[in-house]
Amino acid sequence: MGNAVKRLAILGSTGSIGQQTVDVVRTFPHRFHIVGLTAGENIDLLARQINEFKPRFVYYKNCRQDQKQDRLADAKYKLLSLEEIAGHPDVDVVVVATSGKLGLSATLAAIKAGKTVALANKEALVMAGEIITGLANLHGAQILPIDSEHSAIWQCLNNEKQPAAQLILTGSGGPFRNYSLAQLKKVTVEEALNHPSWRMGRKITIDSATLMNKGLEVIEAHWLFNMPYENINVVIHPESIIHSMVEFRDSSVKAQLSCPDMRLPIQYALAYPDRLSNPKLPRLDWSSISNLSFEQPDLYKFPCLRLAIEAGEKGGTYPAVLCAADEMAVGLFLAQRIKFVDIAKLIEQALEQHQPITSPSLEEILVADDWARQKAWQFVTEDSL
Amino acid sequence: MGNAVKRLAILGSTGSIGQQTVDVVRTFPHRFHIVGLTAGENIDLLARQINEFKPRFVYYKNCRQDQKQDRLADAKYKLLSLEEIAGHPDVDVVVVATSGKLGLSATLAAIKAGKTVALANKEALVMAGEIITGLANLHGAQILPIDSEHSAIWQCLNNEKQPAAQLILTGSGGPFRNYSLAQLKKVTVEEALNHPSWRMGRKITIDSATLMNKGLEVIEAHWLFNMPYENINVVIHPESIIHSMVEFRDSSVKAQLSCPDMRLPIQYALAYPDRLSNPKLPRLDWSSISNLSFEQPDLYKFPCLRLAIEAGEKGGTYPAVLCAADEMAVGLFLAQRIKFVDIAKLIEQALEQHQPITSPSLEEILVADDWARQKAWQFVTEDSL
Repeated sequence: MGNAVKRLAILGSTGSIGQQTVDVVRTFPHRFHIVGLTAGENIDLLARQINEFKPRFVYYKNCRQDQKQDRLADAKYKLLSLEEIAGHPDVDVVVVATSGKLGLSATLAAIKAGKTVALANKEALVMAGEIITGLANLHGAQILPIDSEHSAIWQCLNNEKQPAAQLILTGSGGPFRNYSLAQLKKVTVEEALNHPSWRMGRKITIDSATLMNKGLEVIEAHWLFNMPYENINVVIHPESIIHSMVEFRDSSVKAQLSCPDMRLPIQYALAYPDRLSNPKLPRLDWSSISNLSFEQPDLYKFPCLRLAIEAGEKGGTYPAVLCAADEMAVGLFLAQRIKFVDIAKLIEQALEQHQPITSPSLEEILVADDWARQKAWQFVTEDSL
Repeated sequence: MGNAVKRLAILGSTGSIGQQTVDVVRTFPHRFHIVGLTAGENIDLLARQINEFKPRFVYYKNCRQDQKQDRLADAKYKLLSLEEIAGHPDVDVVVVATSGKLGLSATLAAIKAGKTVALANKEALVMAGEIITGLANLHGAQILPIDSEHSAIWQCLNNEKQPAAQLILTGSGGPFRNYSLAQLKKVTVEEALNHPSWRMGRKITIDSATLMNKGLEVIEAHWLFNMPYENINVVIHPESIIHSMVEFRDSSVKAQLSCPDMRLPIQYALAYPDRLSNPKLPRLDWSSISNLSFEQPDLYKFPCLRLAIEAGEKGGTYPAVLCAADEMAVGLFLAQRIKFVDIAKLIEQALEQHQPITSPSLEEILVADDWARQKAWQFVTEDSL
């Protein structure tokens, strides 16, 4: 597409990644044009975005496609479904910035239409990595990562002739890195939502505190970069300056560094292979960086990381169960129905009781997802954690 | 050239970089074939290398091309001059691993013959960067860096579409990083030769202790990557794990990391664009790396770095004077004729008294070089430091 204006559909435009994507478009109006916006329940913000960017296609959670009945209906745009927007011929790049299971069907629609998919929704790849990457190959769709870690790996791999020997995913370790097990048992929702280095949505902030987020990223990296699990490693790096690394077969390692700001991986994915000069992005100041520190993750204190890697290695429907149980557990924790340390217990129980299916169809994945959600609910209502 | 065997001439094969280059060839006999070897005075080692690799062309410092008179003369190879070997049609890649001024004329011969030049000799580019890069463009010769810092930058730039916004050269800071000025005044030759992280030749080890080496690298980076001096920065990084970094215009930074081992940049340059799996190269172990630290260089305690950057910015014959005065000063320090802190004083005086020529010819550069050497000698014999 060269320097032509890219036409974007932003799915989940009112969430954290969605808003930052909108900000990138605002900064580069000559490079990007929004043709589609979709949201969940934040209708006020969506209405303001519609007013500013005049998209042709809109979707939100409770919209009525019979436009006469809809409060946001406007002759200037069409209400379509998520999947219709994701696969529309007038869309070049689909930014999947929804969270949880929601992004899956829209991602599949975009891929089947051969779109470039800028993917922030990691659950889609975790649940259905084999199906998604298979369809992407079949339909010539490109999947570009928006997660900072995967963007870092992608930047380091840029046109290297040899494949990577090892991926080294870094993670801040979250706000409870130095907590004892006794302290972890007393963690409040407020504490867990207070991430030391990244401003993010609520679900991913809790996932970062449990290290589940890093585990999901391992599975995502496995699919995005076609890398065996034994060659994906996690290193805790509290400063969140190095966003991940790639080791090549000659023992050389490349790392990508920046201030923690999601607009960088977003604009890298949108503008690839160009890099855009964005005055809003902070630059690293080497006169103020004195230390970058590293430690091994503690799988005993943070069992979610171990559970995720094990579920990824086992494959089949296990990752879908992991995702669904985690989504439920995080919701229950945010609702103060379970304790912080119960998140991992709930997920582990769901995984233990699951009857897996290998190489599952999409339907089988969704059935496993449903099963895990019900199971999670059952554990809590029956007080069997 | 693809995977065809590359035919190498190694100039300075008995020095530190030369020996490590020979080791790389020994590890990959199916990729590299030595056709030329040259040495200075270490004839015994050269003889062993000749015996092992059976080169077709040989040169050493006091060889007599009239072979009958020469102690190493052998019907199996030809004694040629450095320049004849560097430009020989049967040579694909010329590894310039000589140190000091010696590499300049051979580098020029290789470039005029359109060779790929793997350059470890930084003085050549420092003295005559404009001439060398101009001739390389004219003759389609490639200059590939072997210095670890420039190799790091080259690896980070690999196939990026946009030019770099900033180069960040890292340096260990040398053995005297934390010395006071009073302590620096008492530094012995033995102390200065004891580098904390790299095993190198004597000249470059002293240059590392004064930070002159980092200054020469700034000038080298200016020419290799066509980067204005204001966009080249030096950061002290005592662990020598990050070998340098590149900042792009979107504020993203890429770094190259590895254990300090010169065989990595050597084999990267020789095999480029391939990366070769070399079991002899140590891999970074992230379970044992807990800290990477950074600080700003102290230009007051280490004036050589400032002198080098200033000479680079002024251009013309100043860098040649810098190089020559430094080579003399290091020699005089190693001979215990001057003190460690006098190295910078001697260079500064030579630079101050120099009458510069802008866009000098090679001859003018060599005249400036001669002038600086005589001047340095005069300072010492007249005791005017």
